[in-house]
Order: sequence, then C-alpha cells, then structure tokens
Amino acid sequence: MFIIGELINGMYRQIAAALKAKDAAAIQNCARQQLAAGAQALDINCGPGSADPVRDMVWLVETVQSVAASMIVLDASKPAVIEAGLQAARVPTMINSTTADREKLEVLVGLARRYNAKLIGLAMDARGIPQNKDQRLELAASIVSFCAEKEFPLEDLYLDPVLLPVKVGQAHLEAILESIREFKIISRPSPKTVVGLSNVSQGIPAVRSLINRTFLSMAAAAGLDAAILDPLDKDLMDTLITAEVILNKEIYCDSFLTGRRKK
Amino acid sequence: MFIIGELINGMYRQIAAALKAKDAAAIQNCARQQLAAGAQALDINCGPGSADPVRDMVWLVETVQSVAASMIVLDASKPAVIEAGLQAARVPTMINSTTADREKLEVLVGLARRYNAKLIGLAMDARGIPQNKDQRLELAASIVSFCAEKEFPLEDLYLDPVLLPVKVGQAHLEAILESIREFKIISRPSPKTVVGLSNVSQGIPAVRSLINRTFLSMAAAAGLDAAILDPLDKDLMDTLITAEVILNKEIYCDSFLTGRRKK
Repeated sequence: MFIIGELINGMYRQIAAALKAKDAAAIQNCARQQLAAGAQALDINCGPGSADPVRDMVWLVETVQSVAASMIVLDASKPAVIEAGLQAARVPTMINSTTADREKLEVLVGLARRYNAKLIGLAMDARGIPQNKDQRLELAASIVSFCAEKEFPLEDLYLDPVLLPVKVGQAHLEAILESIREFKIISRPSPKTVVGLSNVSQGIPAVRSLINRTFLSMAAAAGLDAAILDPLDKDLMDTLITAEVILNKEIYCDSFLTGRRKK
Repeated sequence: MFIIGELINGMYRQIAAALKAKDAAAIQNCARQQLAAGAQALDINCGPGSADPVRDMVWLVETVQSVAASMIVLDASKPAVIEAGLQAARVPTMINSTTADREKLEVLVGLARRYNAKLIGLAMDARGIPQNKDQRLELAASIVSFCAEKEFPLEDLYLDPVLLPVKVGQAHLEAILESIREFKIISRPSPKTVVGLSNVSQGIPAVRSLINRTFLSMAAAAGLDAAILDPLDKDLMDTLITAEVILNKEIYCDSFLTGRRKK
C-alpha cells in the first residue's frame, strides 16, 4: 500500500506554529520522521489558520523538498493554492483533491495533466457526501469518465470513497469498504483507491488508533491502494505490514515484522 | 460474531495435565475465564495424548456443564468420541467437525440431527485441503447439498474454509477470505461461516496475536459468523468489538470499548 504521511497539516498546533514562524527545521523534522517511519509521500496542508495559503504552500513545498525527494501531496481546497505548490515542486506531486463537480474536474484534471501530477478524486460533489453505495459509484464513475475523456492516465487517479467517522457515519462504513472493491472495476486500467484513514476515528475521545488499524485491515483486504495516515503510529504500521503479509503482497518470513519496520 | 473459546484442549499442557489428573477445578476455571472474557461457547478437545478419549470427552462435558450452561463444541476426529459427548451433554452442542466426505457426512449429519446439534463442516475431504477457491466452494456446496437432502437446517451449519497458517499457506489467505463471502451465497437460508482463527498464526515465533487480530478484522468484514479463538487475548477481543462497531453490528457510543469489554 502506498503510504502518505498526514502530519504536515496546519490543523495541528505545532505545524501551524512552525508555519507561522517559518521554522523550516520543525517542518523538515516532521517530514524526515514520517519518511523514516515508512511514509512514501507527504501530504502538505496549510491548515485553516493560514493568512496567505498560496505563499505558505510554496514555502512548505520548498522546505520539504530541500530535505526529501519523495512525492508531495498538495492538499488544499483552492486550486490556486494547489497550482502554486505544483509550480514550486521539483519532486513528484499528487493533487488532493478534486470532487466530481464538472467545474472542479475541469480545473484540477487540467492542472494534473499540465504538471504531470497524480490526482485524488473524492466521490462527492456540491450536493454533499453520497448517502449510499450506488451514489458513490456513480460519482466515482463520472470522475473516471471525465479523466478518460481528457486522456488523464487512469492509473494516476486515486478514487476516495470519502471515509466517514464511525461516530456519525457508522451505518456507511461497510458500504464504503464495498465501494473500494467496486471502484477498482470501473475501468481498465483500474483507477487506484485511497482513503484519509484518520477520518474514521474523528471526534472519538480514546482508542483512535484501534479504530484506524481495524478499519485499515478491512480496507487492505478490500484492495485499497493508498492511505493518508499517521505513519508515526507504530501499532498502525505494524498492522499494515501484517495485512500485506496476510494478503500475500509481502513475502512471509519469521522476522517479517521486525524486518520491515522502518523505525 | 459468535465466539467459541478454544482453550479447553488437551494439546495445551495444563489442560492435558488437568485431564489426566481429573482436576475438575482447573477445567472449570478455564471455562469460567473464557466465558467471562466474552466466549459464548466452549470448544472441548481431549487432545492427542488422551488414552481414553471417549471417557475423557464425557468427563470434560460433565465437568464444564456443571458450572456453565453455555454451548459446548465437541471437537474430535472420531465420531464415537463426539457421540459420547452428545450423549453426556445437557447444554446446547455443536459438532466440530465433519469433512465433505460422504461417509463422514452420513455419520456426523446423522448425529447432529439426532442430537439437535449444530455442525461445523470443513471445506476439505479425504484428498486433503483444497488448493483454490473453486475447489473450496465445490466442497462447501457438497456439504450444503448433503445437509439439504437430509433436511438438516442450513442455519445450523457452520462452513469452515480451513484456515491455513500464513507461514505455509500465505498464497491462500486472500482466497480464504473470499470463500467466506462465497459460502454465504451457496443457499437460502445461508449457511453460517466459522474459522479456527489461531491456525493462521500457527508455528510463528512472535506476533501471533497481531496476525490473528489483523486476519479477524478482515474476516469480520467478509461476513464471518463465528470464530474459534482465544478469548483471553484482550487485544484480539478489543479488535473484534471494534470491527463489529465499524461494521454496524454494534451501536457506536464513545465508551463502546470499555462498555463492551467483558473483563
């Protein structure tokens, strides 16, 4: 599974403070820690408190890529912020994210093509989050069909079923797991699938890691290709390694866990 | 999920010793502990060292049912041992197990009907363990069709895909998960599904619990109805509770874990 570290996000107090103070060492430390723990890409989000997200995104991209060559996932709701990140990046990039709305697709698929970036497509639109599996599949299919029409490579598209917190969306989680299976058969070549894992345990006072790793095991078995998660959660990463061994994606040996742990 | 405690088994040294010494308190203590931890039924197996398995099975059944009214799962390869247990039991019973071989089915479905017991059917036969999903489905279907022919109630049948250790059967585990899904659609009413969970981590020096609980999350998402497992493994039981909340089988509340933990 492709692991995207979620920790460089201005919604976290320490990152917001580092971003405000332009404390490059703090950001770079967070980047290095996540990569050492097994992240293969780093999500970057200025957070809701950024006064100048375009400038902050450029600074974050430059700060991170000066110490790591790994992929940067540009996480912003405004296309101008994403484009500023794409322009600044010398490393591979992924856009997080477009919805299924035609006008968003026009802009973001356009950017992804122009800058040779991968693209996360959320199975939702201006009407909100889908209420069932059929709506989710329909939205995902419309993203796939738009990408196909624009000749955006489908293997660079990561469909996100929009993971709801168990606290409010308990009744939807089984269908979301099923959607991960269904998204893979929308087209040949298959689009990829991704979730923002921590969403599933949002707003829960304790046992967040247990909920995250239990859902991740299930999602891995459903064929999930990528996850945005906290790679510093060692129990979560151990579960992921174990899931990949069970699913025969990594070869078993008696020391499979210690051998594959990054730190 | 229906939890069958696996610990009263003569392959464990302490149980073998208690069985040899006819130490009822030790057996009853093991029964009580498992039920307190959340087991709803108790598997009982005399183990390979029993000199008189018929007598030992009767003693175990009487010893356990004198302190607990929960279901007893009679686990033996010889039908005579199972029948002795069925005769001794005043509590609900399950037979563990028949294979898909016609002569075994004749005897064990007969016993299950006569004693009103539930029945575990292993998707294997005299030729051995199936090498792929199609063979497994074919064997399961032949058990279902035999039961239907003999008017054994299909909702009392628990199909077991025969869980292989990741150490030797790594390439089969994903197909085994898929089999759990497939078994459910062999008939209406659906047969139930069960696994002997600890098999998946057999022969592994460390991290057995991590492998068990990661597989159990996946199997729960595939619709597994019952598992024979170690209910004293607290991490495993926490994972199971969490899986049932994610799958909307238990209602979420902020204290779902502490509220539902048995001990």
